[in-house]
Amino acid sequence: MTTIWVINANTTESMTDGIGRSARAVAAPGTVVVPVTNARGVPSLESHYDEAMSVPGVLEAVARGEEEGADGFVIACFSDPGLDAARELATGPVIGIAEAAMHAASHLGRGFSVVTTLSRSIGRSEELAERYGMDRFCRGMHACDLPVLALETDPQARRIVTDACRTALAVDGSDAVVLGCAGMADMCAQISAEIGAPVVDGVAAATLTVQSLVAMGLRTGKLGEYAKPPVKQLR
Amino acid sequence: MTTIWVINANTTESMTDGIGRSARAVAAPGTVVVPVTNARGVPSLESHYDEAMSVPGVLEAVARGEEEGADGFVIACFSDPGLDAARELATGPVIGIAEAAMHAASHLGRGFSVVTTLSRSIGRSEELAERYGMDRFCRGMHACDLPVLALETDPQARRIVTDACRTALAVDGSDAVVLGCAGMADMCAQISAEIGAPVVDGVAAATLTVQSLVAMGLRTGKLGEYAKPPVKQLR
Amino acid sequence: MTTIWVINANTTESMTDGIGRSARAVAAPGTVVVPVTNARGVPSLESHYDEAMSVPGVLEAVARGEEEGADGFVIACFSDPGLDAARELATGPVIGIAEAAMHAASHLGRGFSVVTTLSRSIGRSEELAERYGMDRFCRGMHACDLPVLALETDPQARRIVTDACRTALAVDGSDAVVLGCAGMADMCAQISAEIGAPVVDGVAAATLTVQSLVAMGLRTGKLGEYAKPPVKQLR
Amino acid sequence: MTTIWVINANTTESMTDGIGRSARAVAAPGTVVVPVTNARGVPSLESHYDEAMSVPGVLEAVARGEEEGADGFVIACFSDPGLDAARELATGPVIGIAEAAMHAASHLGRGFSVVTTLSRSIGRSEELAERYGMDRFCRGMHACDLPVLALETDPQARRIVTDACRTALAVDGSDAVVLGCAGMADMCAQISAEIGAPVVDGVAAATLTVQSLVAMGLRTGKLGEYAKPPVKQLR
Amino acid sequence: MTTIWVINANTTESMTDGIGRSARAVAAPGTVVVPVTNARGVPSLESHYDEAMSVPGVLEAVARGEEEGADGFVIACFSDPGLDAARELATGPVIGIAEAAMHAASHLGRGFSVVTTLSRSIGRSEELAERYGMDRFCRGMHACDLPVLALETDPQARRIVTDACRTALAVDGSDAVVLGCAGMADMCAQISAEIGAPVVDGVAAATLTVQSLVAMGLRTGKLGEYAKPPVKQLR
Amino acid sequence: MTTIWVINANTTESMTDGIGRSARAVAAPGTVVVPVTNARGVPSLESHYDEAMSVPGVLEAVARGEEEGADGFVIACFSDPGLDAARELATGPVIGIAEAAMHAASHLGRGFSVVTTLSRSIGRSEELAERYGMDRFCRGMHACDLPVLALETDPQARRIVTDACRTALAVDGSDAVVLGCAGMADMCAQISAEIGAPVVDGVAAATLTVQSLVAMGLRTGKLGEYAKPPVKQLR
Repeated sequence: MTTIWVINANTTESMTDGIGRSARAVAAPGTVVVPVTNARGVPSLESHYDEAMSVPGVLEAVARGEEEGADGFVIACFSDPGLDAARELATGPVIGIAEAAMHAASHLGRGFSVVTTLSRSIGRSEELAERYGMDRFCRGMHACDLPVLALETDPQARRIVTDACRTALAVDGSDAVVLGCAGMADMCAQISAEIGAPVVDGVAAATLTVQSLVAMGLRTGKLGEYAKPPVKQLR
Repeated sequence: MTTIWVINANTTESMTDGIGRSARAVAAPGTVVVPVTNARGVPSLESHYDEAMSVPGVLEAVARGEEEGADGFVIACFSDPGLDAARELATGPVIGIAEAAMHAASHLGRGFSVVTTLSRSIGRSEELAERYGMDRFCRGMHACDLPVLALETDPQARRIVTDACRTALAVDGSDAVVLGCAGMADMCAQISAEIGAPVVDGVAAATLTVQSLVAMGLRTGKLGEYAKPPVKQLR
Repeated sequence: MTTIWVINANTTESMTDGIGRSARAVAAPGTVVVPVTNARGVPSLESHYDEAMSVPGVLEAVARGEEEGADGFVIACFSDPGLDAARELATGPVIGIAEAAMHAASHLGRGFSVVTTLSRSIGRSEELAERYGMDRFCRGMHACDLPVLALETDPQARRIVTDACRTALAVDGSDAVVLGCAGMADMCAQISAEIGAPVVDGVAAATLTVQSLVAMGLRTGKLGEYAKPPVKQLR
Repeated sequence: MTTIWVINANTTESMTDGIGRSARAVAAPGTVVVPVTNARGVPSLESHYDEAMSVPGVLEAVARGEEEGADGFVIACFSDPGLDAARELATGPVIGIAEAAMHAASHLGRGFSVVTTLSRSIGRSEELAERYGMDRFCRGMHACDLPVLALETDPQARRIVTDACRTALAVDGSDAVVLGCAGMADMCAQISAEIGAPVVDGVAAATLTVQSLVAMGLRTGKLGEYAKPPVKQLR
Repeated sequence: MTTIWVINANTTESMTDGIGRSARAVAAPGTVVVPVTNARGVPSLESHYDEAMSVPGVLEAVARGEEEGADGFVIACFSDPGLDAARELATGPVIGIAEAAMHAASHLGRGFSVVTTLSRSIGRSEELAERYGMDRFCRGMHACDLPVLALETDPQARRIVTDACRTALAVDGSDAVVLGCAGMADMCAQISAEIGAPVVDGVAAATLTVQSLVAMGLRTGKLGEYAKPPVKQLR
Repeated sequence: MTTIWVINANTTESMTDGIGRSARAVAAPGTVVVPVTNARGVPSLESHYDEAMSVPGVLEAVARGEEEGADGFVIACFSDPGLDAARELATGPVIGIAEAAMHAASHLGRGFSVVTTLSRSIGRSEELAERYGMDRFCRGMHACDLPVLALETDPQARRIVTDACRTALAVDGSDAVVLGCAGMADMCAQISAEIGAPVVDGVAAATLTVQSLVAMGLRTGKLGEYAKPPVKQLR
């Protein structure tokens, strides 16, 4: 049995529920998904400041998962907040949803497009694409100019995101689309059907990446940069 | 039920057996692994010429798998021969073992080393690392100077490969090691235990990548470069 | 006397004739051009699959040229099929027409555009541009959406290709244009005259690159990756 | 009069004092340096976890400086923690000491070496070098294997750092050395004299970069990614 | 007291005056700006040929400054002519205005645009952006199609440049604009006010970069490439 | 008949003679090689300063060749001095010997090494390799620490250069060697024979590149950056 903690980096419980559904929908028999809400942070991450303030809570969740025997972790926010620090803390693998989604999309063709919520978050996504070596596959990042929480409340949200995906595909000449927000996970299958191209949800992709790494007995290398951090007195 | 054809690009049946064992050892319940031996090709791939001459047989196997309802394909040779053409032919996802192994290793730290058989194959591996965006993670490629088939017959093979892994880890300052030959799959767990660092076998990694993509309903985008190839008269 | 085998990677004899004319038109006195048609393959290369299936025939031609004393080889298809393997087989230099055309164009200014037949072949051309270090010069790849064989039969073909060249030059702000198909060789001079910019035909460029390398006594280095391939039993 | 807050990202007051001395030693007449100690964090930053936990305190200091009329900010830790978020919060410019030091060193020759404390922090420094476009100048990163606080207490520290600088210069063939820790600022002039090459201290460099940007009336662009963050309820 | 020679690479005295004003407007108390006109060259630099013919005069000015005790040098032309050779000749730091402007702009956001005079000079600017590692920040280069000297004489010049800056900002999604000609220095503050984004003048930026490097005691490393050039007989 | 001016960038006549011999040895029947010595410059180019001071004389030679009907130009110094400006001036193609040599070597395998005279010139060579897109092929630059003119006078010169080539080949794992100085042209064939690998002389390579471009009717594109420079009053 493999237990994967899927950590919602924001404090909105309803989003955690959606994330849990997406993860469970793809997990293999024998994989237990534990959705977790950040206990310290903000209702949605829409700036570098929001991200920075959410990281300590994400790391607390990882530390708690460690104690309770989690086999691996998903950080379920498209800015992959706290990924490096979480890899130091955890024994098992830790995967961000931007990381997993971009990797998955790179297997589906020569190039993909990313469709995200706010244009101000594109800089961070570009940085992550480069960090993961996925910038050579990423042909464009497109914002819907929808706040994160509007994904749940705006009745037009699915239409707006679908249109953005269709446009991105055409403008970029891409083979696939990556949804750039954990809150879009629910929309994945339906958008794919409408636009006739593969659409990747990072929550599902990251959950399966952790599941696969655990199945192979693989975890973060601990000989160097990602060894357990030295114990310090936190003021 | 998910059926994955794992295609050994060479004609050596005993290597197909080992590949099948590695794939089955990690596959989830409900995943059926079908190991296939290349019907046209050479006993081992150790040059660009060997690779080129093996591709038509790999593609024949993919075409046959398509007809028999395969959900996805693994190309089980570290030069990932015929990958682009196979993606045109197949309906489901197609993953090479170099591709999957390098991606998996990139999740385990800042950098990995590759340990392969012959030094003359390093050029091709570097090309693949760049193609997949994994060159930024790859800190070194190391040859054991063992012919591929000696992996099965040379009693010193495991010792030689293990030593090369240990050296690579130290010289490159890597967090993980990738085994650069399908014939090394059997050695993976033991080497990892000996060197105290994660060691990635591409056969396992590729099988699980295909399994995950199928679980998410993802396949190669067919709107452009990877559409079915136009039918031609083959002379 | 320098003998250069110019190998048409497809099976269409009339295209071989055009290729031979282009090569002979620029060769120096003392250079003998031997045009060769692929004996095993497809009438035109328009997919990764087509390319993969053509490679064994290209390599057979190289092997035959080796026996008959060829001083060097041109692979006359813009996907440069089988280039690495051919370099292993041949004693003299082997040059692809995409390789030679892009190199030549890089000498003519800060950037060039490529005009090719089908949009689905652009991915491969981009890959080659990167492989040759020419991506920094390539400002755009443009498809005419003409099948390869239509270049010979469609009376509008020259007009369509010329228009695409003119547009590419303007949109990309390029200094020169590369014709991205061996079947366009005949059009080169006339298009250049019409658009007022240098236009490069890869068949001519590759023939002269081989001629120059032979004149300098240069051939592929044989100490490592490109040594003669080990002899194998081909099934 | 220009007021620059120089924020020590850790909680060690004596290190703040040294940082203040280094900044004041180079500031122009009319520039007021305000050294600030992180009120929430750890005594030294030696892991990704340490960095992540220090960021909220750094951002609190920036917010306080904003209220008190600071003209610009220096983040005085070589991992430049919280830089993007601080740029969102601040009206004036914000510069990290790794950023400033690498930029300054790039003006002094073709390449520089970085000498830092612990080898586990090199990964983060490489990431920053790439982020700033300085990776093409950085020829090597070298660790002294000294904990940060040992820089103040170990009587051998200066000798060890000097030796590492001399070695780095020779091994990398560099034109200059960058000191990779705020705690090394005091050593800068003396090491430069001993090794006969320019040695860059990031605290001085960042202070002067902020001073220069303020003198030119330049601050972070606020039209997009770095606009003030939306107000959120922090739990 | 710090003495900085600011060398106008062309022979137009009125432009030297404007350059001097821009430099003095930002220099700290205690910094003496010495504006110098190239004694051998052309009235404006608008081609590679112009640049090449101006370099000997720039180097003569540097040699003269050396003799007269200059602490550092600015090369005040956006092609940074003769920078490497000047670094060999000078004892103190030498900075080009393209270099300084792009570095400064990189501190102000994720990306900047360059607005320059003639489109034919964009190639050189791109080359410099790459050389300085600033290509990753540069999102676009835009020409006004104004000759250099028209900046002083054309009453529409300021309007044309302002419009180009506004367009560049919008098209590129940039955070800041770099003015790509020493002759635009005077316009900097006003354009910034009009477009609501930071606008960088390289003359000011380079003067302050030299001032800062001198304050830190930093100069070009002299151990290798930038050692004094061997004395030769110039014919 | 094709007339190629081969311009020695320095003022040493004996070196011009050697350059002329190398060019003529490979030129096709019908190609006339005109060796030219720089009338204004230094006896050898061994610094950025030397290079800068030699460029006006190189450009004078190009202008003279233009008037006398030269079909193309070679700039015969490994720093390719004045290449961009010469391309503006000339009607026919202009090729530098570093450019041609690196391009030729890239056709001979996966990677090459450069062996040059002084270590201080390596920075410039690296810059050129990047400019030409050849950095991905260049595995190492190695200095012999021989002054340029010692190549003609030091009886040990050939031995020293040969040894450096052999070492470079082994250390870098290269397929070929590029000789990084026009003064080494004479040694090319003999070194190749001794080390058993292809050795490229840039003078021969550049002469043949110009000859080939002329044969194809190709010249620098004149629509943009490389149009004739505007006429200016040179002071």
